[in-house]
This record gives sequence, structure tokens and C-alpha cells, in this order.
Amino acid sequence: MLFIGERINGGFKDIQQAIKEKDKSIIQQWAKMQVEAGADYIDVNMGAASNKLDDFIWMLETVQETVNTPLSIDSNKPAFLEKLVKTCKHPPIINSTTADQEKLDQILPLAVEYNTSIIGLCMDKKGAPQDVATRIELGAQIFSAAIESGISEDRIFLDPVTMPLRYLQEQVKNQIEAIKQFTVLSSPPPHIIVGLSNIASKSKQVHLINKVFLVMCIEAGLDAAICDVTDEELVDSAITAEVILNKHIYSDSYLKAYRDSKKK
Amino acid sequence: MLFIGERINGGFKDIQQAIKEKDKSIIQQWAKMQVEAGADYIDVNMGAASNKLDDFIWMLETVQETVNTPLSIDSNKPAFLEKLVKTCKHPPIINSTTADQEKLDQILPLAVEYNTSIIGLCMDKKGAPQDVATRIELGAQIFSAAIESGISEDRIFLDPVTMPLRYLQEQVKNQIEAIKQFTVLSSPPPHIIVGLSNIASKSKQVHLINKVFLVMCIEAGLDAAICDVTDEELVDSAITAEVILNKHIYSDSYLKAYRDSKKK
Repeated sequence: MLFIGERINGGFKDIQQAIKEKDKSIIQQWAKMQVEAGADYIDVNMGAASNKLDDFIWMLETVQETVNTPLSIDSNKPAFLEKLVKTCKHPPIINSTTADQEKLDQILPLAVEYNTSIIGLCMDKKGAPQDVATRIELGAQIFSAAIESGISEDRIFLDPVTMPLRYLQEQVKNQIEAIKQFTVLSSPPPHIIVGLSNIASKSKQVHLINKVFLVMCIEAGLDAAICDVTDEELVDSAITAEVILNKHIYSDSYLKAYRDSKKK
Repeated sequence: MLFIGERINGGFKDIQQAIKEKDKSIIQQWAKMQVEAGADYIDVNMGAASNKLDDFIWMLETVQETVNTPLSIDSNKPAFLEKLVKTCKHPPIINSTTADQEKLDQILPLAVEYNTSIIGLCMDKKGAPQDVATRIELGAQIFSAAIESGISEDRIFLDPVTMPLRYLQEQVKNQIEAIKQFTVLSSPPPHIIVGLSNIASKSKQVHLINKVFLVMCIEAGLDAAICDVTDEELVDSAITAEVILNKHIYSDSYLKAYRDSKKK
């Protein structure tokens, strides 16, 4: 399982304030906490806190001053991407492209040139699909375009787009079905990822819904998530699901063994 | 989801002692607690506490004196079954038959005559299968024999046989795969059930493994479990998984709404 820490996002008030005041301490604290909790990547997202390229570069540098973990660049401004990617010490994940040809034309050449991974959101200008078939179609479009560009399967992350249970309950199971179908898209398959926090948006059972949904997605074939990696029960649940699927060896201390292996 | 309360089992020391001392209070307390927690059926199992038919009848009567919930008769003595079934106020579940013809010949006619449900364990004299295909073959044998006897799909529960993660890790995912395949055995499909507690046998993370495994099985198509219904987090997780699969309507108080609906 690849865990991408979601917390350095201008949508959170403390991060928003840190960006405005150029206060490195909060950002670096979250970077360290997420890495200690087992994050494989740190997602960095400005949200609405700023629309300046310099601020985004400052955020990436701030994180890289304190941890050596690769980054996920979470930006909807393709014009910024080359400079952001160049700021990264390790090849980052570009988060994200959609299936729109215009977007693919901007992002795939960058991913090739700088050896990055990409997250492909299974949506296009028409928005997020309401059925399974369109999700698969859009996912397959992104996948084919990426492969044809020379990006290998292990650098492609398909995201079937998480819907909030509270508002679009009937569509949530479509996402799980899409995950199952992505696992047979190719051999080896691409990574399959969710942005977990959408599922429990505005719900009163955030932790429970996050945990249960993540476990269901892992059972369906998910192998990556952008989530709150500092939620210990969430991570414990994901590790347990992978042990049940025989992806890690069971021992009585399998939770500790998994975490120790990440620290190496 | 059908929850079958596992706790009235002579394998637990308090129940064993209650059977030996003919102490109704402990048994009735567990019966009430399980029904209040949402049990749809109460499993009754003597374990090694006694091998006398009268003791088993006494247990069934003791439970029925205090709750009106149907029973699951958990006995490996086919010779006892007719008298046990006759003791039940409501048609019980006979727990269980295997795929052995001799066992089917004993149990199916009883199930037909007394309108009971049956649990079919996907194993035979050779033991529990180590692969998916044999599980499906044995499950299909039980299912066909039951249908041919005139037992309808909704009275057939197939159990793919839960293996302990600690000892047979590589086989656990076979069980989940078998669940998926049972869902397409017929339309409507039979019920699919697990005896949950085996999964975490002798493990140090019993509650976590039970929860995660149950959620994975529900995602795969499970709709019934023999489990500790008084484990609130376990039941909450199962309800949440079913809400995610759109089997119950989401509301902010969906956990309470589900439990309230069981009390009616």
C-alpha cells in the first residue's frame, strides 16, 4: 500500500495561515508527523490559500528542508507544473490529469521528461461520471495515452473519483466496481488510488466511513490512497486488509513489523 | 445483513458451567444481550460441555423462555436434530451440513419437513478445501441438493469455511474469492455466511482482524455472519459497509436507524 499524506493542503485552516504568514513550522511539523506515520509521499496542495507560483515553490522547499520523502504535486495549474516538478529533489507524482486531451497533452510530456508518476482522475470536462462504464472508459483513455507516451504502468495511478456517501450514495459502489475492473486493465496493472476524504465529506461518522470504505477498496484491488496517514486506526485497518490478502506476512506483531519496514 | 449471535456456545467457560449446573441465568443474559445488540438468530451450541440430547433441549428451551428470536441449532449430531428442531418455536437454521451425501441425506429431509434453513459448510470428509475451485464445487453440490429437495434459495446459507489467518494465511483470500463466486451461483443467490471468529483465532488483534475481514467479505457479497454481535464496532463496520453498497439508506444517524429497525 502506498500512503500519500493529505494534510499539507491550503484547505486546512492551519496550513492556509502558514502559507499567508510564511510560517514554516506548521508545514514542517505536518511533514514530519506524516512521514513518521508511514507516508510514502507527501501531497502538497495550495487550495485557495494562494494562486502564486512562488508560494507553491516555497511550500515544496519548506517540506523538503525537513523530510526526504517524495512529493505529490497537487495543482490544477498546468502552467506551474514544470517549475514545481523541477523544485522536487525526487521524482514526484503529478496530481493530477483528467482524460481531456488538452490536459494529457500538457502533463504527459512533463511526466516523461522528469520521470514523474501521474494520477489520472477518471473524469473529463463533463465532470465526474455517474456510472461504471464511463469511469472505465476515461481511465482506459488516460492509461493508453500514458503508456503510449512511454510512462510505465508502475508510474500511472488511476483514481476512479470518490463521491461523498452523504450526497451521492448510489454512486459509491460504482467506484468500487471500477477499481475491480482497473485491476484487469493490463498486466501488470496500473496503481489504483483514491482521494479518501471525499467519501465521508460532511458525514458524522468520518473515521468509521473512511476505514470501512478504504478496506472495501483494498479488497477490490486498490493499492494507494491519499488520506490522513496520522489516523492510526485507518492505517491499521489498511495493513490488516493487505495481510488478509496475503500481501504481507502475518506475524503476531504484523502492525509493528509493517511500520518498522517503512522506517528503513 | 443477518447477524447470528455466537455466544451461547459450550466452548465458552461461562456457558459450559451454566450447562453443567443447569443455571439458566447466564444463558438467558447472553440471549437478551445478543438480541438487544441486533441478533437476527441466536446460535446454540453445546460444544464439549455435554453430549446429552436432554441438555441441548434444555438450552433451547432456556433461550426461548427469555427471547422470541429464532435459533440456529449448532450440532454435529444428526441423530439429535429432529427433536431439537421440534423444540424450536420458530423455524430454526440447522447449522450445519457438509457436502457429504450421507449428511445431506440426513439433514435435507428434516429441513424440508420442518421448513428450516440450513447452513452448508463447503467441506466434506476430506476436510476443508485448500483452493477456491473445491470450495465452489462443494458449495454447488450442497446448493443443488438443497434446491432439488425443495428448499428455496433464501433458506440456504453457504459457508466457504473460515481459516485462521495466523495459521493458514495464504488460504484466507480463497475464501473471499469463493464468496464472490457464490453470488453468481443462482439468481437470486443463496445467503453467504461466515463463522467469523475462526479468522482471528489465537491472534493478538482479534477485534481489528474480525472487523476488517467482515467488511472485506461483505464487499465480496457476504450477507450473514455468525459472530459476536455484542462487539459494537464490528456491527457498526458491517452496517457501514452495507450503506456504502447502497443496501440501506444513508442518513447522518444511519447506525441508530439500522439498530432501531431491528428492534421493531
